[in-house]
Amino acid sequence: MARQERAIRTRRTILKAAAAVFDERGYTSATIGEILERAGVTKGALYFHFSSKEELALGVFEEQLAISLPPQSSKLQELVDSGLVLALRLRTEPLVRASVGLALDQGALGLDRTPAFGMWIDQITRILAEAKTGGELLPHVDATETAEVLVASFSGVQLLSQLRCQRRDLEHRVVVLLHHMLPGIAVPAVLARLDISPDRAGGLLAEGRSLPVAEAR
Amino acid sequence: MARQERAIRTRRTILKAAAAVFDERGYTSATIGEILERAGVTKGALYFHFSSKEELALGVFEEQLAISLPPQSSKLQELVDSGLVLALRLRTEPLVRASVGLALDQGALGLDRTPAFGMWIDQITRILAEAKTGGELLPHVDATETAEVLVASFSGVQLLSQLRCQRRDLEHRVVVLLHHMLPGIAVPAVLARLDISPDRAGGLLAEGRSLPVAEAR
Repeated sequence: MARQERAIRTRRTILKAAAAVFDERGYTSATIGEILERAGVTKGALYFHFSSKEELALGVFEEQLAISLPPQSSKLQELVDSGLVLALRLRTEPLVRASVGLALDQGALGLDRTPAFGMWIDQITRILAEAKTGGELLPHVDATETAEVLVASFSGVQLLSQLRCQRRDLEHRVVVLLHHMLPGIAVPAVLARLDISPDRAGGLLAEGRSLPVAEAR
Repeated sequence: MARQERAIRTRRTILKAAAAVFDERGYTSATIGEILERAGVTKGALYFHFSSKEELALGVFEEQLAISLPPQSSKLQELVDSGLVLALRLRTEPLVRASVGLALDQGALGLDRTPAFGMWIDQITRILAEAKTGGELLPHVDATETAEVLVASFSGVQLLSQLRCQRRDLEHRVVVLLHHMLPGIAVPAVLARLDISPDRAGGLLAEGRSLPVAEAR
């Protein structure tokens, strides 16, 4: 058990170091040597967990998604919460920033960025499918199609916020995005009861940290 | 007059060449020498119009925006039309592709990408402000805020489409985006009469080509 715990901790240390290096230097310029140095682990330890730079990038992505948030009575509220929390984490956690940076880095040579988007879209599709089953969505809504447009739009919004002011206004922009998107997908009675205030994120994140970690896929 | 026409033609030739080189090699790797060679003009001619690589990039952006579309009875229809036409042009015109590529290229060293987004957002803000005056928008809508979220979301949607299938499904994705966004901003009676079909784009573009060119700013 202790050995397994140590392995998990080492894996996380390596991913944090990889995320920091990707965030600072970009995927293409980052080297495994730099990540080793930053993590302070042996080459053997790193290659035990990850066989390539691309696997490290995928690991960073999975780690970003592996978070649980407190369940809500409405699935659309959970969707809103995941957007608000992601906005907060993008501002405050280098690993999350690196992970989204990797997915959007058009110059990332040799990195297949589709799995990153795919994992993210799958997660949102699952929430929307449950919302649909619960009668929270307008009848025409297709969970996958909506998940794709939400993830894509979120990416664009965070890109503009990064460009304009280093993401300082990201939470506000995500709230604006949700206010624009939700009337097109939510049943009015559910829409009226959603809490789309950015102040929720901090509390949700703290509460989520005490929950068992979700599986990334 | 003939001299002025020739100058306009030369300027356009240079911009087309610059766009092609930016599109193929990325902003950072592109050189003025390559653009000169592609355009088949003299160094003097190029520097008469553009003093730097960054000015060429801005020129590409302005050229992309300098298009008129046929006026419609509803300003929101004009907004829809501009989105549909941009989607078609992104698939078919290298200059438009290069221009959006430049705005989204996070690795573009030394290129200030905010003016590009700014020009685009200004154009959409103007259409929305007119729509607001005409009573087409819901009372809470702020033209600038909505323009920003539309431009950002469009950027993200085209990025995902590029990643997934080289933009082959872009028109469909833009229609999905509009279907998600418009219920949050349009007065129901206007919304019900909007034509959001991708088939409009080809005809609009052909008609637009015969109109006088709009000023980019």
